[in-house]
Amino acid sequence: MTASSVSGATAVWVDGVPAQSLPLPDRGLDFGDGLFETLLLRGDTVLFSNLHLRRLKRGLEALYFPACLAEVTRLLGSAAAAIGLKNWRWSALRITVTRGSGPRGYGPPSNPKPRIIMVATELGPDYGKILSPAALTLSSVRWPTQPALAGLKHLNRLEQVIAAREYRLAGADEALMLNQSGQPISVVAGSLFLHNEGRLLTAPLGDCGIAGTRRELIMRRWGPALGLAIEETVLTPQQVEDADEVFYSNSLVGLRPVASFGGRSWATYEICEALYGRYQEEIR
Amino acid sequence: MTASSVSGATAVWVDGVPAQSLPLPDRGLDFGDGLFETLLLRGDTVLFSNLHLRRLKRGLEALYFPACLAEVTRLLGSAAAAIGLKNWRWSALRITVTRGSGPRGYGPPSNPKPRIIMVATELGPDYGKILSPAALTLSSVRWPTQPALAGLKHLNRLEQVIAAREYRLAGADEALMLNQSGQPISVVAGSLFLHNEGRLLTAPLGDCGIAGTRRELIMRRWGPALGLAIEETVLTPQQVEDADEVFYSNSLVGLRPVASFGGRSWATYEICEALYGRYQEEIR
Repeated sequence: MTASSVSGATAVWVDGVPAQSLPLPDRGLDFGDGLFETLLLRGDTVLFSNLHLRRLKRGLEALYFPACLAEVTRLLGSAAAAIGLKNWRWSALRITVTRGSGPRGYGPPSNPKPRIIMVATELGPDYGKILSPAALTLSSVRWPTQPALAGLKHLNRLEQVIAAREYRLAGADEALMLNQSGQPISVVAGSLFLHNEGRLLTAPLGDCGIAGTRRELIMRRWGPALGLAIEETVLTPQQVEDADEVFYSNSLVGLRPVASFGGRSWATYEICEALYGRYQEEIR
Repeated sequence: MTASSVSGATAVWVDGVPAQSLPLPDRGLDFGDGLFETLLLRGDTVLFSNLHLRRLKRGLEALYFPACLAEVTRLLGSAAAAIGLKNWRWSALRITVTRGSGPRGYGPPSNPKPRIIMVATELGPDYGKILSPAALTLSSVRWPTQPALAGLKHLNRLEQVIAAREYRLAGADEALMLNQSGQPISVVAGSLFLHNEGRLLTAPLGDCGIAGTRRELIMRRWGPALGLAIEETVLTPQQVEDADEVFYSNSLVGLRPVASFGGRSWATYEICEALYGRYQEEIR
């Protein structure tokens, strides 16, 4: 498996074949009819692949895709091997699974053939060091209320696109995204955590948001290993400002502390740094 | 402008060039970062193009796309001319506008170059006759609550995909879609109207739904021409069952009466048929 170079250190495969384009029509383009995952690789090793594949499986089932997880797993192995040959020390691999082609209209074909698109991007050789604390703004666009799709990493991501544009224009590093009731859920590209005196708080995801893989690791493994109590609970913006520490997590950043939000700024990041230490142990 | 034939009577253009595939990466695929319109053509004549282009313009502005409506209009003219050469009597043309390529991540590039994809499909030569009354079910998936995107015809359409799959499996022709509060908003692919003693009722679209072009024509032109009073008002499922008539509208079907919903069935469709007569006058 070799891959076409698109721009700089990038490689693209469609259904396992090096490609620079997607056959049309595709329901992923037409309706966002699909799912994705962004995985971290060290050399040819895919990190935390089980967590990503488990979330993808939940999404495939929720969208009534035909079973294709075995094929995704097989192509992931081939892509990882091909990436290994490139001598990239660290890379990001986005897997997109769409419902493939179909006739005009919302209704999926009765026998869809999913399409699997993989895009690999080299990360800098210095990857694996904690990023500088982030300036956090408040997004003006909120998560949509949709229990039927909450938690899934599907392709309908317009809110995050608009929110990301907004915080960049504001000169910030990330933005807090609220639900329709004004309760903090996440940042644009990551899960949100508050620390208060030995307790880690994060928002429930029953109505919106994405069930982050690193969120799961923090809640089930790294947090408890540090003796932290984990609470999934409704949050308020004021609680964010009042927290001892605020940080977020995603599959490429790992964990990143928040330096400022609203009227508040923070100067120490002990809990986030300690959790990042756990993260480093697992990826190295 | 000629076009590649993809399957049967279909033609595809990407940025005005005959194509069978989409260059990768594309933010339309990655995040549903874009908009679409489905237009009806009689020969080389695009029907109601102003309404479609006006809605597209609202969408482009809401998503902060760079100005590209003039280019869409130019390519629409070229596509219509090419379709005219095919001697298709009636056709559907889907225009998809995405934010084009960009680096990894939700944030759009600071200077995006939108991509314009057009797919033309021949409709049957008998097009322009009212369809048989539809069996309507109730969708189990509801519209997401999202005032920031309500009314727009953007590419994030997973709810409608799932709902369309569901009503087809149930052997129905369409499904009523409710908002998160359980109030009827639309059908899967069309605007919803109830008729009661000279009054046409349709749902407000402040929190979800798509602002249909035919909905606008019915509310502003065809309904008033028949002496009907138009009311945009919150609806209940019971009101749908109790209505004198129920019908829906979209850009290809025009208007279609509903034959059954819940415990109710209807046997006469006078208002829908009269409105369809107005529609026929304008498309012929």
